[in-house]
Amino acid sequence: MNFTIKNAVIAVTDGYRTIDVQVVNGIITAIDSNLDLIGTRINGENKLLLSGFFNAHTHSSEKWQRGVIPPLPLELWLAHLYEFAPLDTEQVYISALGTAVETLLSGGTSVVDHLVLIPGKELETIATAVRAYREIGIRAFVAPLIQDESLSAGIPSGESSQIHEPYFRSTAETLVIIEEAVRLFHRPDEGINILVAPTGIQLCSDALFTGCVELSNRYNLCRHSHLLETKAQEKLAQEKYGCTAVEHLQRIGYLSDRTSLAHCVWLTDSDINILAETQATVVHNPLSNLRLGSGIAPILKYRQAGVNVTFGCDGASSNDSQDLLEAIKIGSILHNVTELDYQYWITPREAVEMASLGGAKGLNMDDQLGSLTVGKQADLVLYDLTNLSLLPRTDPIGLLVLGRPTNAVDSAWVRGKQIIADGKVTTINVDELRQELFNRSEWGKTHRSKSVGEMEVHYRQVMGL
Amino acid sequence: MNFTIKNAVIAVTDGYRTIDVQVVNGIITAIDSNLDLIGTRINGENKLLLSGFFNAHTHSSEKWQRGVIPPLPLELWLAHLYEFAPLDTEQVYISALGTAVETLLSGGTSVVDHLVLIPGKELETIATAVRAYREIGIRAFVAPLIQDESLSAGIPSGESSQIHEPYFRSTAETLVIIEEAVRLFHRPDEGINILVAPTGIQLCSDALFTGCVELSNRYNLCRHSHLLETKAQEKLAQEKYGCTAVEHLQRIGYLSDRTSLAHCVWLTDSDINILAETQATVVHNPLSNLRLGSGIAPILKYRQAGVNVTFGCDGASSNDSQDLLEAIKIGSILHNVTELDYQYWITPREAVEMASLGGAKGLNMDDQLGSLTVGKQADLVLYDLTNLSLLPRTDPIGLLVLGRPTNAVDSAWVRGKQIIADGKVTTINVDELRQELFNRSEWGKTHRSKSVGEMEVHYRQVMGL
Repeated sequence: MNFTIKNAVIAVTDGYRTIDVQVVNGIITAIDSNLDLIGTRINGENKLLLSGFFNAHTHSSEKWQRGVIPPLPLELWLAHLYEFAPLDTEQVYISALGTAVETLLSGGTSVVDHLVLIPGKELETIATAVRAYREIGIRAFVAPLIQDESLSAGIPSGESSQIHEPYFRSTAETLVIIEEAVRLFHRPDEGINILVAPTGIQLCSDALFTGCVELSNRYNLCRHSHLLETKAQEKLAQEKYGCTAVEHLQRIGYLSDRTSLAHCVWLTDSDINILAETQATVVHNPLSNLRLGSGIAPILKYRQAGVNVTFGCDGASSNDSQDLLEAIKIGSILHNVTELDYQYWITPREAVEMASLGGAKGLNMDDQLGSLTVGKQADLVLYDLTNLSLLPRTDPIGLLVLGRPTNAVDSAWVRGKQIIADGKVTTINVDELRQELFNRSEWGKTHRSKSVGEMEVHYRQVMGL
Repeated sequence: MNFTIKNAVIAVTDGYRTIDVQVVNGIITAIDSNLDLIGTRINGENKLLLSGFFNAHTHSSEKWQRGVIPPLPLELWLAHLYEFAPLDTEQVYISALGTAVETLLSGGTSVVDHLVLIPGKELETIATAVRAYREIGIRAFVAPLIQDESLSAGIPSGESSQIHEPYFRSTAETLVIIEEAVRLFHRPDEGINILVAPTGIQLCSDALFTGCVELSNRYNLCRHSHLLETKAQEKLAQEKYGCTAVEHLQRIGYLSDRTSLAHCVWLTDSDINILAETQATVVHNPLSNLRLGSGIAPILKYRQAGVNVTFGCDGASSNDSQDLLEAIKIGSILHNVTELDYQYWITPREAVEMASLGGAKGLNMDDQLGSLTVGKQADLVLYDLTNLSLLPRTDPIGLLVLGRPTNAVDSAWVRGKQIIADGKVTTINVDELRQELFNRSEWGKTHRSKSVGEMEVHYRQVMGL
């Protein structure tokens, strides 16, 4: 568990320095030149050392449908997704491992899995994902995705009066499941955290949100949710509450400094001020926002208002990758087209800080994670700067963020435990994982969704298409 | 040179089929089930076969500065770029090879290199790039970047009257160089093409454009240019011509079915009709348009108007990668946020056609390239569908375009000659290339540009910042 990284390249205010780092019992104990060797010697030469990034919003089991859902907006895409969702915990296990592998190989050491639960096997689903993350060793924030309204309720009614089937599980039962999951699996000291995570205002009652707030307060849990991903949700909030979704969430007490909110595309300026006041975190998922046509989240406005922002890949059916460096690149440069004055554009160094310290803040762990600081936990990544995709030698962080790094992660540690060495995952057999993914799937199986067809007429009407 | 690919996965109208492909003397001679083995046997099992893509706009020597230029709009970014441009043909050679390698490993078999010329060594620069492309074997469209006005002329004057230094080389001399390059290097039958390629209306006189049209007509050359990449250029066109840039280019006869135009961000609806009428091709460079804050090109409008569109990576200082699959992904999904009706969104199959047949059309070679068709040249790519990034088995093209394929290219051929086998480039030593890139560069060398500072005050003023 103890090691010393010798001669790694690290970023300092005015450029880069070559330095040593000591790690003892999973904690960074020294960062300086010419440190004594403690434990294993790690060769950091020609390698860039960064604090691990956070994949701060994803849904691991979407991996089974990646590449397959046609270009559709969220509401119809979701109908397609749910119609073919995996119902088998072995699939949950495999896709959690796969999500972790792709996150780790693109610089992430933490994952927030807004985990889709198999109906009737909710605790088993959570147990399975936790098992996968423990085995591979990534730091996991498992956020069981819950709702208490049925899918069609997520589309605004418009002029028509829509009747929705009741959700198959009661709000109270759902909250019991989450409390049980906390009791069984919430072990922050072991790198496994349970979050309360109602899917969002579009499919959740106030009772579910406030029940989650109580659990969060009782067990010191972080809170997670989708927020205003689409224009349809903006309309829906007005129909449902007569105010914006952010105003409503503030009123019922869901927003706090340990609340992270995925997407945040359709916020007003006054909503942005509420996020700043409540110190909630925005998780920017640029790729799924483009893929689903949700819009461009006003990230530069958030930053100017002092709102903490970090990045997520989102689920692999709406992206359809789990490459965190891709999300960081696009999540940085996308906003240059929304603001003429380049002085506000996100620099590569700022992007790296958003992806690391920003992620830690959103999970209320910035005292322990998110930067190369003595006393913090050793969630670390070494990038091979002799890799073709990171050459020539220019600005390592500039090229890491703005380029397209391929096979660039040389080593990664979580809580001081090495998970990637020499570019390979050491804790699980990735070839077996590949084989499982191959064996359990079939090309070109036609996935024509019935539910999309059923919802489409109403959707087009209410959205004015 | 002759080979038979056995049991490859290819796309057909209603899904996928497993099929054989025969190639004789660089030409596809048969596509069918159970074909006889001619020449070498290539195992296509579990591999997707596609026609090679076109990296239809790049500047290879920008590779030397990738990752290093801070977030700046084009006009200031360009000042930075030119101040530190490589002046050594060995660098030109290495960056051309590097550009080719990254293009090939991301599915491209053709590259349009809008090649920055070293002043005073123009023909040597062209000769060097041609040598690199011949050695690696990629199909190359070398488009020597020419201008006859100095850099500051590219920024609109606004209210002020700006005086610009004359360009160091006369229009006539420049045209002589291009004609000589055509004589020396234009060998379409050998996969090497020279294009006429004035950089754009912002830095070129009418004399240069019409001189290029004459050369194009005389030698049957394709035409290339940047077009309306930024809002500043839109303003400049009005100052310079009193009409739009497209109207002016049509008037002087530059637009044709063998003209490809990079960027096309700031066109009016009537400009779009002119492109459709003249059958010019738009080369979409989504990543540099974001990175430089140029805007989102109205690609869905082009497609609806019947304008041919294909993709480019653009130079590696404005992207800062040369991963063509990344450009295709972002260039497809970016437009979903510009159009509410998802029926117009680009599907993965359409994106693949834009990247292959669209590229061939833009270079007036769609009778010979751009699709898996008997009689066309064998510019082919096999993707390994057992690669982790292309699993599980869902829709291979969906995942290729919307995912983040890594190490996915198994084999590639240009004109029937194999350039990639088993995921590795076979024609050059990539480790040596890596070493050269490493040795000729240095991390953290501060690149503070003097010219950016000089131009910035005027730029901010005229752009209202």
